[in-house]
Amino acid sequence: SELLELSEYPTLLHAYSSLMEIKRNILIDIATKIPFDAGVYYRFDDYHDQLIPEAWICGEFRPEKVLRGKGISGLTLERKRSLFVPDRKTHPSFIDIKEEAFIQGSFISVPVFTDKNFMGVITLSRDNEKSDAFGVEHRYMLEILAAFLSSEMSSRLLYNELEDSYFSTVSSLTRALEAKDSYTKGHSERVMDFAVGTAQMLNLSFESVRKIKYAAILHDIGKIGVSDDIITKDSSLTDSEYGEIKKHTEIGYDIINDSGMFSEIKDLVRYHHEKIDGSG
Amino acid sequence: SELLELSEYPTLLHAYSSLMEIKRNILIDIATKIPFDAGVYYRFDDYHDQLIPEAWICGEFRPEKVLRGKGISGLTLERKRSLFVPDRKTHPSFIDIKEEAFIQGSFISVPVFTDKNFMGVITLSRDNEKSDAFGVEHRYMLEILAAFLSSEMSSRLLYNELEDSYFSTVSSLTRALEAKDSYTKGHSERVMDFAVGTAQMLNLSFESVRKIKYAAILHDIGKIGVSDDIITKDSSLTDSEYGEIKKHTEIGYDIINDSGMFSEIKDLVRYHHEKIDGSG
Repeated sequence: SELLELSEYPTLLHAYSSLMEIKRNILIDIATKIPFDAGVYYRFDDYHDQLIPEAWICGEFRPEKVLRGKGISGLTLERKRSLFVPDRKTHPSFIDIKEEAFIQGSFISVPVFTDKNFMGVITLSRDNEKSDAFGVEHRYMLEILAAFLSSEMSSRLLYNELEDSYFSTVSSLTRALEAKDSYTKGHSERVMDFAVGTAQMLNLSFESVRKIKYAAILHDIGKIGVSDDIITKDSSLTDSEYGEIKKHTEIGYDIINDSGMFSEIKDLVRYHHEKIDGSG
Repeated sequence: SELLELSEYPTLLHAYSSLMEIKRNILIDIATKIPFDAGVYYRFDDYHDQLIPEAWICGEFRPEKVLRGKGISGLTLERKRSLFVPDRKTHPSFIDIKEEAFIQGSFISVPVFTDKNFMGVITLSRDNEKSDAFGVEHRYMLEILAAFLSSEMSSRLLYNELEDSYFSTVSSLTRALEAKDSYTKGHSERVMDFAVGTAQMLNLSFESVRKIKYAAILHDIGKIGVSDDIITKDSSLTDSEYGEIKKHTEIGYDIINDSGMFSEIKDLVRYHHEKIDGSG
């Protein structure tokens, strides 16, 4: 029946708004499924080849950095597979090491990793004096939870990577377009900085700030379809030239509409020259 | 100990190159963890509100479409939660329904869904005459496998959606840029169709075809930074104008370099006017 709860974890994970929020809640979420007396989530620090505690529930004990191969968590990092220690006190490998929360207790420790990266280690322990020791089934349960966590974290990392790339492409294009004219150079990026700064001061949601960021960087992208002569003309524009330049909002709207995303953004781009009274 | 195998499923899922390949292997993969006599993966057909069999292992029995609420799989669709039928023959709800592979047998049926979409149903059965009946633990195991499957499928769908949007944005921009000049209009899309067609005929990998598609649509994107006058000029170019237009490969390289992706593509864009002998 403990198994029943495990398959709910992905739904919980999906609901978190960011990777940081997932990490902050790892141990609280695990505690509802596998009760423990002390638990730590360590992030793997690739550069120094060590584990850094990022989240923990362990009473007064304050977890420290762990070197590869040292103690239970360090051994999990070294071996890249889960470890079950029914009684730490009698286990030959750990008799001399004092970095864990309890000396007298049972431990389970599992790696969190994807096909690309080793991400971290989760180590749980139960104090012999307070609780029953972990059984081997708890090891398998924690492995399943860690596998859900790995999937979610790696899918978010991949998605964020693609989104960063998307945004960089779009802003490089804007930059290249505006660089042709000293009058517009850097304009969209300045608008973006101002708009995002304002949105953050207003405490808008992460999702709203993201939309505003895209709308700002894309608001003049329709100028890609307007002739340079008109955009860079120093003297005043004829009526037909003015008609041409006004099309940039519609061209921008069409470009964003084609993308299939950003349903709210396309209207921000289309109507960015509209005034409060509807003229513009 | 059966649990041990479950947490390996995500690694298996990650390795599949496409959603189609995942679906094709669902039942083979499940069979290695929960042995069954007959199993079907049904895709949910939103429009007709029914289940369509997409993959199955069930001997001579050929699964058919299932209406909401009908039989075991239809009930799983209706209730959106898993169903365990220890003995179908004595179960009051299913006595009159004959669409399943075995009348005398035990069944487990679980939904596959994400926070956004109902995706499908997996139904497994064991024939009373051949195998022991499923226990309740098998229901929980199948729920865990279905949760892994849901995570993987929804993360791939989300990623594909963002990638489609990225590609559409980039091709709309190319289209808008080229539309200003009847000489270049539709050029990059024609190049793309030709290049992708060639790549497919050569049976290049999915990943290679994807790179070629992006390289083709982006190969002239650097023209965004070159003045229209030069691009659309009918008469022959002066040396300095020719120098300007030659910059479009470098500007394109910079734009793609900024994106952080496409490390191979940027060189394709930079050197797309190079000839076999290195001149160009």
